[in-house]
Amino acid sequence: MTNLAPSDKALVPFVSVDNMMKLVHHVGVEPMLKGLADYIEADFKRWELFDKTPRVASHSDEGVIELMPTSDGEVYGFKYVNGHPKNMKEGLQTVTAFGLLANVGNGYPVLLSEMTVLTALRTAATSAMVAKHLAPKGATTMAMIGNGAQSEFQSLAMKAICGVDTVRLYDIDPAATEKAARNLEGWGMNVVACKTAEESMEGAQIITTCTADKQYATILTDNMIGAGVHINAIGGDCPGKTELHKDILSRSDVFVEYPPQTRIEGEIQQMADDFPVTEMWEVINGTAKGRTSDRQITLFDSVGFAIEDFSALRFVRDRIKGTDYFMDLDLLADPDDPRDLFGMLQRAAS
Amino acid sequence: MTNLAPSDKALVPFVSVDNMMKLVHHVGVEPMLKGLADYIEADFKRWELFDKTPRVASHSDEGVIELMPTSDGEVYGFKYVNGHPKNMKEGLQTVTAFGLLANVGNGYPVLLSEMTVLTALRTAATSAMVAKHLAPKGATTMAMIGNGAQSEFQSLAMKAICGVDTVRLYDIDPAATEKAARNLEGWGMNVVACKTAEESMEGAQIITTCTADKQYATILTDNMIGAGVHINAIGGDCPGKTELHKDILSRSDVFVEYPPQTRIEGEIQQMADDFPVTEMWEVINGTAKGRTSDRQITLFDSVGFAIEDFSALRFVRDRIKGTDYFMDLDLLADPDDPRDLFGMLQRAAS
Repeated sequence: MTNLAPSDKALVPFVSVDNMMKLVHHVGVEPMLKGLADYIEADFKRWELFDKTPRVASHSDEGVIELMPTSDGEVYGFKYVNGHPKNMKEGLQTVTAFGLLANVGNGYPVLLSEMTVLTALRTAATSAMVAKHLAPKGATTMAMIGNGAQSEFQSLAMKAICGVDTVRLYDIDPAATEKAARNLEGWGMNVVACKTAEESMEGAQIITTCTADKQYATILTDNMIGAGVHINAIGGDCPGKTELHKDILSRSDVFVEYPPQTRIEGEIQQMADDFPVTEMWEVINGTAKGRTSDRQITLFDSVGFAIEDFSALRFVRDRIKGTDYFMDLDLLADPDDPRDLFGMLQRAAS
Repeated sequence: MTNLAPSDKALVPFVSVDNMMKLVHHVGVEPMLKGLADYIEADFKRWELFDKTPRVASHSDEGVIELMPTSDGEVYGFKYVNGHPKNMKEGLQTVTAFGLLANVGNGYPVLLSEMTVLTALRTAATSAMVAKHLAPKGATTMAMIGNGAQSEFQSLAMKAICGVDTVRLYDIDPAATEKAARNLEGWGMNVVACKTAEESMEGAQIITTCTADKQYATILTDNMIGAGVHINAIGGDCPGKTELHKDILSRSDVFVEYPPQTRIEGEIQQMADDFPVTEMWEVINGTAKGRTSDRQITLFDSVGFAIEDFSALRFVRDRIKGTDYFMDLDLLADPDDPRDLFGMLQRAAS
């Protein structure tokens, strides 16, 4: 009698949205953001090891679907992610995502995971990990411009990783600000709802911009930005979508994840191809300088890179061990004899 | 009280290996091969509509992991597939795969499916669909050289779609031939186990080669090939892996799926970059000639292309409707308010 239950080799651990949320609460939101930041920082340190390629994008009039693969030589990972700005009006997420890790040695997947929630966490963890290196010392106040789905995660990551205790919220839609303020109640931060972008920046050492329109916008103009701040620019993340006036870029030292991708997708798509940037992994490695003076404006032109997703999936893979926050998916065929796929199929008939 | 169950928008139908096998038996192996061939042929007819890109490959010493995306403008699909020749010795599949379809309009996935079994079926369906157009009229006998996991599927597809009634099996390993012969018992074909490649080709109008070594091999030499046959070359499917002596290619009219990919991965990697080939979709469309004489050798240099996977996933999406052969996966976050991902996460805490 052949055992028809799939063997362990055929099973891939799957983390659903429900289980991801349970994992976040099991670990704790702030410890999870810290843990993710540690994994991301560790992978930035070994940046040169990774296979890097700009994401593979399929553009349409409505949006984009992207595959973001990378590998460290032992583990392969990719993320599927869409970006459809019009989705919100239809009650759908602008961005949804899932991801996979696989064993490079045999090609077998080892983790499939939702990444809508996880991407929100890793984006915030990346921002805060970078701000830890670039923001002025003793930064305690952040302006949070754009109070959409990413804003609470940014705020708590900056608290957990950089010691920010005050967040000043602004959004063109007051209902978004209200939502973010309500969600941030009880997390031990001073939360100030502001009526203008200018007001949100009063006393802020860190300025985070994260708005969602797929178009050239000017959320920040040059006269709004004082000396010494760190700008964490999240929302300029695809061709045709920027948030900062180019004069700000000219006055700032700009730090990026992966220049070939950022020059197409980031704020610096407004600048010449040889506009000088510093790769963030070199700052973390100590091979390039980060902040060098109190009056310098540092700008992290963040578009999100495959390695950050890879780090986040590694974290999830490690943290679900010994928990119930995953289920095994019968994703891979596993015949007793690898040449006998047809025999396996025939035995399933009975 | 907030309803915490994921809404329909958050759920993606998932076809496991177990359910794929059940679906195959529900539809029937031969009807499924025919159905797949119809879907593939329909997509070859509208070939020009598709976004086409060579697969995105991550090579290592042990093998390769590939992503194969495509889109027809309304539906997006991709396949994850690995190729690790050494896996078989370790009791693992050389090739495993899964795939996804998504809605181009909003980026939401609409189907996740195992594709190890499905790829075996679509590869055979493609071969037979092409042979229907290129093989000599009245072909009834196929030589099947290489009796691994693909061989039974090839045999039954040629029966169901081209009317082949006799298959002559040969493999360098007699145990593989025995396995294939045993599996093909009771399917209404004459099955002849042969001791040499030459013997398997006696009286055959169609010659299928499908061996697995990742190296240049010469399964067929020029003197073995008589006039008028159709060669269905499956196994030359990655850089450094070919099965036919180049003299055969010179004597044949060569038909391919997507020239930029086949010139790198197929049998024609042995030939100059301007070696003439015909794109198969043009034959099916009627814009290029297929077989033009009884003495002509036609050769389908098949490497597998993303559009065939797309067709196969479309077929599965359509055929699981109204069945129990899938489960809904909670793969996508779906907050009541798309901007309130954090609120969704918080509500899950209680």
